[in-house]
Amino acid sequence: MNLDLWYTEKHDDGLGISLKVKDVLYSEKSEFQQIDILNTHFYGKVLYLDGLVMTTEKDEFIYHEMISHIPLLSHPEPKQVLVIGGGDGGTIREVLKHPSVEGVVLCEIDGKVIEASKKYLPTIAGKLDDPKVDIQVRDGVAYIAAQKNCFDVILIDSTDPLGPGEGLFTEEFYTNVKQALKPNGIMAAQSESPICNKREIQLIYKLLNKVFPNVHTYVAPIPTYPAGYWSWCFCSNDTKPLEFINEEIQAEIEKETKYYNKDIHKSAFALPNFVKELLE
Amino acid sequence: MNLDLWYTEKHDDGLGISLKVKDVLYSEKSEFQQIDILNTHFYGKVLYLDGLVMTTEKDEFIYHEMISHIPLLSHPEPKQVLVIGGGDGGTIREVLKHPSVEGVVLCEIDGKVIEASKKYLPTIAGKLDDPKVDIQVRDGVAYIAAQKNCFDVILIDSTDPLGPGEGLFTEEFYTNVKQALKPNGIMAAQSESPICNKREIQLIYKLLNKVFPNVHTYVAPIPTYPAGYWSWCFCSNDTKPLEFINEEIQAEIEKETKYYNKDIHKSAFALPNFVKELLE
Repeated sequence: MNLDLWYTEKHDDGLGISLKVKDVLYSEKSEFQQIDILNTHFYGKVLYLDGLVMTTEKDEFIYHEMISHIPLLSHPEPKQVLVIGGGDGGTIREVLKHPSVEGVVLCEIDGKVIEASKKYLPTIAGKLDDPKVDIQVRDGVAYIAAQKNCFDVILIDSTDPLGPGEGLFTEEFYTNVKQALKPNGIMAAQSESPICNKREIQLIYKLLNKVFPNVHTYVAPIPTYPAGYWSWCFCSNDTKPLEFINEEIQAEIEKETKYYNKDIHKSAFALPNFVKELLE
Repeated sequence: MNLDLWYTEKHDDGLGISLKVKDVLYSEKSEFQQIDILNTHFYGKVLYLDGLVMTTEKDEFIYHEMISHIPLLSHPEPKQVLVIGGGDGGTIREVLKHPSVEGVVLCEIDGKVIEASKKYLPTIAGKLDDPKVDIQVRDGVAYIAAQKNCFDVILIDSTDPLGPGEGLFTEEFYTNVKQALKPNGIMAAQSESPICNKREIQLIYKLLNKVFPNVHTYVAPIPTYPAGYWSWCFCSNDTKPLEFINEEIQAEIEKETKYYNKDIHKSAFALPNFVKELLE
């Protein structure tokens, strides 16, 4: 394709991320959202939902490693894991690197995201057919309400608090997540951009603090998300971040990671002043 | 202005940063480069040189705090400081927060950048008229060659290794910087994006290692630079990073900073695996 074709993800606040496009590989409107997969020059194949970058071949490792390894390595022996959202499969791929994991449920509302990711993003979705993975194509809000005391780690790998992901940002939902965790369980949730989503990060942090005794924000660069800087919340009943790290498994995991390592694990919880102020 | 006006900084590799523009405040071709200042919806006023974002009102604090406070607080008593490049004045503003600083030279090749910044970016350039500041409008390459053993800290606040900044990325230049430093002096230099400028970051790191016994890369998110993630090199004859931090001054400085604090100082040197691999 010789056309100088660019797609710009434009946000209402006047910020855009532009990528030069080789090909449109997939474009379909599902029951829930518009799904597009573009082959781009810089980031390789990119999954867009409702026009927003969800993941790219080139930088997905940062997001998927950070949502997974920080909570999983803070748990002495995670056996049962639940991922809500994350239909691209990247989080599942990282979770399966942990030898103690016996089963992982992927609860994704949109089966078309899973299908398209399997077909077009095999380096990301390639572990979705692993026998340890139980794929539940259904609403995470309803699913979690029926689970009690059964997961060691729950990862909320959601879209933004608009559209199909909206119900994943409520006190009721987080309360149900807490009840679905075993008493020593850990949850991690993506919690938006400290630069572009100040209201959302504050809302999420406030709601989580109503539900969990321990809520700690951690951060990493995500080049293809708005303003390139992202946050997650680490939540638990009693495990504090950095209090326990499974160093033996960590040493194995960090042989395979591209972003995560033991220094990153600690430094991710070091928050800039402007982020601390947001969370006060 | 009701026009839906956007400017996209497009890079050859197929990556672009798009900003919605309220007004074009300044647009002039100097002897060295095209200088534009746009008033944008999201990042406030933005300084572009040759079409590339140099600094924005909204996120400039991260870059300017990180290039300044990490080296200055690693020195027991920085009195004489040199900034090469940095005509917008943001680095000067941060340097002047250190009470030990008696004088700071700004060596900027393009006087028009200084003039335009003073006029349109007063929150960034506002300290350029401070009596401690000696502004030298001249080529940093020639200037540094004439300086011997006179600076405690030198900060290389350059553009990319193309155009007027090119001469600031050579072994000869770094050797002259070393000779301009006092024996216990420290240099910090911006060293490009670990995601977009792999070749450049490797080149800079290699050249610096030929000249300085201690070379240590540190990182931070810079939302308006390509891929939103940036690096600097900390270089010295004998001071290692984190070996000494002036904690008393640090406690004062971090009351005024928006990104930098003592935890950030340490965590900035924690490098992801993919950055470590680049620098091997």
